[in-house]
Amino acid sequence: MSKRMVIRKRIWEIIEVAKPGDTASKVFDFFILALIFLNVVAVILESVEALERRFHLAFEVFELFSVAVFSLEYVARIWSCVSLPQYAKPLTGRLRFIFKPLSIIDLVAVLPFYLSFVSVDLRVIRMLRLLRIFRVAKLTRYSSVMRLFGRVFKDKKEELALTFMLMLGLIILVSSLMYFAEHEAQPDKFPDIPSAMWWSVVTLTTVGYGDIYPVTTLGKVLAGLSAILGVGMFALPTGILGASFVEEIQKQKAGRKCCPHCGGEL
Amino acid sequence: MSKRMVIRKRIWEIIEVAKPGDTASKVFDFFILALIFLNVVAVILESVEALERRFHLAFEVFELFSVAVFSLEYVARIWSCVSLPQYAKPLTGRLRFIFKPLSIIDLVAVLPFYLSFVSVDLRVIRMLRLLRIFRVAKLTRYSSVMRLFGRVFKDKKEELALTFMLMLGLIILVSSLMYFAEHEAQPDKFPDIPSAMWWSVVTLTTVGYGDIYPVTTLGKVLAGLSAILGVGMFALPTGILGASFVEEIQKQKAGRKCCPHCGGEL
Amino acid sequence: MSKRMVIRKRIWEIIEVAKPGDTASKVFDFFILALIFLNVVAVILESVEALERRFHLAFEVFELFSVAVFSLEYVARIWSCVSLPQYAKPLTGRLRFIFKPLSIIDLVAVLPFYLSFVSVDLRVIRMLRLLRIFRVAKLTRYSSVMRLFGRVFKDKKEELALTFMLMLGLIILVSSLMYFAEHEAQPDKFPDIPSAMWWSVVTLTTVGYGDIYPVTTLGKVLAGLSAILGVGMFALPTGILGASFVEEIQKQKAGRKCCPHCGGEL
Amino acid sequence: MSKRMVIRKRIWEIIEVAKPGDTASKVFDFFILALIFLNVVAVILESVEALERRFHLAFEVFELFSVAVFSLEYVARIWSCVSLPQYAKPLTGRLRFIFKPLSIIDLVAVLPFYLSFVSVDLRVIRMLRLLRIFRVAKLTRYSSVMRLFGRVFKDKKEELALTFMLMLGLIILVSSLMYFAEHEAQPDKFPDIPSAMWWSVVTLTTVGYGDIYPVTTLGKVLAGLSAILGVGMFALPTGILGASFVEEIQKQKAGRKCCPHCGGEL
Repeated sequence: MSKRMVIRKRIWEIIEVAKPGDTASKVFDFFILALIFLNVVAVILESVEALERRFHLAFEVFELFSVAVFSLEYVARIWSCVSLPQYAKPLTGRLRFIFKPLSIIDLVAVLPFYLSFVSVDLRVIRMLRLLRIFRVAKLTRYSSVMRLFGRVFKDKKEELALTFMLMLGLIILVSSLMYFAEHEAQPDKFPDIPSAMWWSVVTLTTVGYGDIYPVTTLGKVLAGLSAILGVGMFALPTGILGASFVEEIQKQKAGRKCCPHCGGEL
Repeated sequence: MSKRMVIRKRIWEIIEVAKPGDTASKVFDFFILALIFLNVVAVILESVEALERRFHLAFEVFELFSVAVFSLEYVARIWSCVSLPQYAKPLTGRLRFIFKPLSIIDLVAVLPFYLSFVSVDLRVIRMLRLLRIFRVAKLTRYSSVMRLFGRVFKDKKEELALTFMLMLGLIILVSSLMYFAEHEAQPDKFPDIPSAMWWSVVTLTTVGYGDIYPVTTLGKVLAGLSAILGVGMFALPTGILGASFVEEIQKQKAGRKCCPHCGGEL
Repeated sequence: MSKRMVIRKRIWEIIEVAKPGDTASKVFDFFILALIFLNVVAVILESVEALERRFHLAFEVFELFSVAVFSLEYVARIWSCVSLPQYAKPLTGRLRFIFKPLSIIDLVAVLPFYLSFVSVDLRVIRMLRLLRIFRVAKLTRYSSVMRLFGRVFKDKKEELALTFMLMLGLIILVSSLMYFAEHEAQPDKFPDIPSAMWWSVVTLTTVGYGDIYPVTTLGKVLAGLSAILGVGMFALPTGILGASFVEEIQKQKAGRKCCPHCGGEL
Repeated sequence: MSKRMVIRKRIWEIIEVAKPGDTASKVFDFFILALIFLNVVAVILESVEALERRFHLAFEVFELFSVAVFSLEYVARIWSCVSLPQYAKPLTGRLRFIFKPLSIIDLVAVLPFYLSFVSVDLRVIRMLRLLRIFRVAKLTRYSSVMRLFGRVFKDKKEELALTFMLMLGLIILVSSLMYFAEHEAQPDKFPDIPSAMWWSVVTLTTVGYGDIYPVTTLGKVLAGLSAILGVGMFALPTGILGASFVEEIQKQKAGRKCCPHCGGEL
């Protein structure tokens, strides 16, 4: 194995999630994690005008630094990935690696910065700056939560699909009825069914801002009934996810297979 | 079997939910499903004045087309149903078929259109146009969700009946108390018990628009207590439905009989 | 057994919840149930000023009729209760019967009417009229829901007591903090801790009318944390009651003893 | 054992939670509990200006009395703790005792009073007066609820940690999106991401005060989706806590080991 390959292999190890005992890699991981965290904080603080005005330069410098690091990391990954047998082929291997979800996330984390030079539309640029928030996605590589959550969703996708179909149907139905009941009394609040759908969502999730609510008797009766009947529907996913979530963690804790809903052994 | 009967039988097969391998029928089903979906979208978009004004003709044409298709489908069903042994009798068989729930839904899907010629009252016509939203009910024939949901409700009807009785009792009780507490302070918000009932529903479902809320100390104390105690009551159906829902899906997944509440085998 | 005793016994049977096959008693029960139901409706409708003005006389007559019936029923019960062995003693037996919960409810159902002659304060009289709503309590004798619900509460009283203690503690704590955070910024909204408690209840039950909400940064941070942490606490009783409720119904359905939380056999 | 030691031991017994049959200690415990309860009530009532002005002296006296009692109790504890073998050493033993959580709570219960002489800043003093609310923490020594709750949290700390991480991520993500969607339309309501975070919390907990809500179409769509998807996430802890809570109480009721989620025996 040529010296060059040895170095490349080592770099790959360092960039990848640390193996137990590999201090250099641990340090690197921690550094990246900290940088991601600081980036999220930066995006949030930067949105505060006073701070932005005062620390403009600091934010810029930090952004440049972050982009530099993440870009280097990205390049290094693509360069060193070939030290894995499955990506051994210099060209085709690297290409396959580039199109791995995790690699794409790494690209998306830096791309906005470079794109912001192309565009001139301020709104687009502000959006691109905001997209940095998705650098948080880089955590996926390190976090078990994301993986856990992924499994939960995958495990219950049918149930969730069904409930969301029911929700959608309910929203459409209730919205049409409310539109019919309230349109004439409040043409400004219920101008059309889509607006009524906003009302439905706000009501059936029990958020109830109070920006739109029925005023006619018919409207109030319909709204009352939909609330009583619909709220349950909208809480179904919670129950389903909750159950699955608890179950998944149960499985982790004790490797044993257990009843999908009560955690008891089967 | 006469050629005519053969054709009739074939048409029946095509109209009905497709059997595996019957491409013609599959295509027809897909076409109907798409049409239903587009009808729902149309009703929603049509309610947006700007769109309605701009694409008025398109909406009209699409409506005529949909009604034509659904009417033809309906007639074809009634004509060809006799190819089933249980509806073999030309007259009595067809009559029994016409009064099947699914047939009635098919009729309701087109009836409003024809009725809209009878009436002249604009409000009625607008309502009839809205009723098209119920064409979504035609999905029942195809969707397993509806059947699943039907089973869930049937399976837990006692529990739900009980809880809804409790809710009703709670609403009446709380409303009367709040009416007594708030009527004098806010005669406009709590003019009578029915208005107080609107308040109760909005509060106990935790929607809380903020259009009505108690202002007197007594009212706030009563409201606070009812909220703390009542919210739980109103979340009962959720728990019951959720449990039953999960259970039903469990049954589907694994044909085996399982505990009605934890999905574990008995 | 003297003829008088026979009659008395028969009257007792008729007044009591009907035994299977006892038509006369069934009819009487149904009559009382209908009357209770109509009384509730009457109280609600009577609160609507327009109706009250228009049908004042009708309401009065119906009220007199109801009171007459319920009074007679009450007297008849006390007179005929002695036909039960345990209340056989004319005086002491009847006294013990009078102080049975169900008997007290029957008394409470008519008492307000008679009291309304004593008082002259209009507010008191209006309250007494409202108290008629509690005639619904007479249903207890007939409804299995009430009994079921009683059992559920009795079965889970410890859990509920604990959670309500936690809630109270949480309300006091959060209220004090919010009072400290918001008092200066909104002396009118958070004048004192009791007002802050109203805010806590409205927030932690997620009703959120929007009549009071924090405006200071500290207040918003505290409110956000209490919402995230507290909402769960306030939903505990729901879970507990829901579980117990489902379980109780399970028991009823199948007489068998089953796991208090998953309905599975033990 | 010298007379002095005997007395000290006896005082320790009295101060500590009463052993069955030790009347003197029972009386003392009850007295302390009552005092704690009255202190909480006092803090609440004192915040009501009218009462404060009217009963100022009474509140002062009661406060002095409470502090005196709690201080004495604290000193007595430290003095008599040495009668326990593990704290036998006069100096080091007492020091170790002073730094026990429960001892610190006892100190915190009286410290604010003494500190209020140091400071002159009225705001600080008002805060110190409010801190008396934490005297409720002294209940920890007596209440099993607190211990139960502690266990519940300890038992489910992983699940809760995970869900709270998810919540935080969700809040940050949703807030950034909403900030982008609404900032231009409502620069006063969504001036920066932190403000948008307040909106997220109020929405995802379904409190929905109505002080901030989206007005743009994009904003409403994003808000609707986040509500539908996010509400479930925020209800997860409830499910987890609820399950664990019920389970813990199950364990208490029947000493037996039971399934961590359905309370059924394993």
